[in-house]
Amino acid sequence: MRDTKRLPIVKIEEQQSRRVDDDVVMEEPLEIRVNGESLSVTMRTPGDDFDLAIGFLWTEQIINSREEIGTIAYCPDEDQPELKNIVNVVLVDSAKRLEGSRRLWSNSSCGLCGKATLDAIRRLCRPITSDIVIREELLCSFPSRLREAQVNFERTGGIHAAGLFDAYGSLLILREDIGRHNAVDKVLGSALAEGLSMDKTILVVSGRLGFEIAQKAVVAGVPIVASVSAPSSLAVDLATDFNMTAIGFLRGRSMNIYSHPERIKV
Amino acid sequence: MRDTKRLPIVKIEEQQSRRVDDDVVMEEPLEIRVNGESLSVTMRTPGDDFDLAIGFLWTEQIINSREEIGTIAYCPDEDQPELKNIVNVVLVDSAKRLEGSRRLWSNSSCGLCGKATLDAIRRLCRPITSDIVIREELLCSFPSRLREAQVNFERTGGIHAAGLFDAYGSLLILREDIGRHNAVDKVLGSALAEGLSMDKTILVVSGRLGFEIAQKAVVAGVPIVASVSAPSSLAVDLATDFNMTAIGFLRGRSMNIYSHPERIKV
Repeated sequence: MRDTKRLPIVKIEEQQSRRVDDDVVMEEPLEIRVNGESLSVTMRTPGDDFDLAIGFLWTEQIINSREEIGTIAYCPDEDQPELKNIVNVVLVDSAKRLEGSRRLWSNSSCGLCGKATLDAIRRLCRPITSDIVIREELLCSFPSRLREAQVNFERTGGIHAAGLFDAYGSLLILREDIGRHNAVDKVLGSALAEGLSMDKTILVVSGRLGFEIAQKAVVAGVPIVASVSAPSSLAVDLATDFNMTAIGFLRGRSMNIYSHPERIKV
Repeated sequence: MRDTKRLPIVKIEEQQSRRVDDDVVMEEPLEIRVNGESLSVTMRTPGDDFDLAIGFLWTEQIINSREEIGTIAYCPDEDQPELKNIVNVVLVDSAKRLEGSRRLWSNSSCGLCGKATLDAIRRLCRPITSDIVIREELLCSFPSRLREAQVNFERTGGIHAAGLFDAYGSLLILREDIGRHNAVDKVLGSALAEGLSMDKTILVVSGRLGFEIAQKAVVAGVPIVASVSAPSSLAVDLATDFNMTAIGFLRGRSMNIYSHPERIKV
């Protein structure tokens, strides 16, 4: 089981920048098929994929007992035969068809996803060309300013925040939601409605930086995305490919820069 | 904006149990429609719903600029006209139809959801009848035992864990994933494959207890679900209705019990 990936990153600590290697959690799409029909694509950490497929079919009430499971196996992906990202579950009732309404798309940090989305992003998006540069010290102040601005955080402890800052450190938009991806959509929707240019903005999120958050930022053209927590492998891949600066573990005066560190000045 | 809900709970601290009121984050489904056609149902915290809808359409590449937005308004729900859980965005190109492949289902803690799922759960699931009782002290030991068993946690800091314990405190199954819901599906899938009875089990999750985690536990018949973090309003509603004990903020020797506290012995 290969559930982390070692990457070269730039670590900033005590106003010093250095290149180190760091492990990030693997995130890859898993397509679950039932009797050969595609049911769902979920972003997951590879490993225990058969358990995941069986649990998903159970909790989606497609099966109710293990006696309904015939065989379960990986299918080769035509484009990338070396990857084990498709699982097919053949039910004892191998003629069972899924109803149209039961086809589901899911995602680890949620929303939607899968290869169709990955392909669509690569086809439809342009690399980010912003020449924004921001000082490390200013960036480090953003998480605490986000927390201070969150009216709900202390009260329930269960809500995510996303904030859009400009290069001078002004908090332009703050939104909250129980779902990290919803908080980001609320921020970006407000920015679009207001006609803001995203070219010199920094998006800060209170949770992990998974594929979906990175995807939303790339589509919107945000040049720098920073999280107080960990990024996923797929988020880093996407940021690297689309010239977006991805930052994780932004805490106190330290951070890890996973892609395009040239936008951060120490 | 009503983004928290006050509930009576049982709080256990220093081996004392008392009834208090506590705020939980609101979680409700939002259906996003485009030109009257249903596009997505997402579990979100109510508030800034128009921003959410616009941001979602943007990051899903259904619109590329604010000039494409005509009007945006809540639609009344036929069954519950007092709820503002449907937003319709009329595009300037009001004849634009969504392609079949673009219909999306999303969820805050992810997977799938929406009213169709809520209704399906209420129709298909049975209340949990387990008479399991567990001592507060034993339950409090589970999060640290889960963490100790997590081989990856310290290395990447970005992975969720779910563990299934029995009433004697044995850790039966541990699974990890970048997605909380995947970790739970992996645990439940393994339990089904092994033929475990769920009647005397406790599911412990490392992240928040949102609707989707509660839903999976109810379908599987798990009598007690405990999280180290906060539950959502909808998760508590579901647990209450289906006779499941929902516990949040399980940390050190304290916890909040949001439903059916009779299964926890102080």
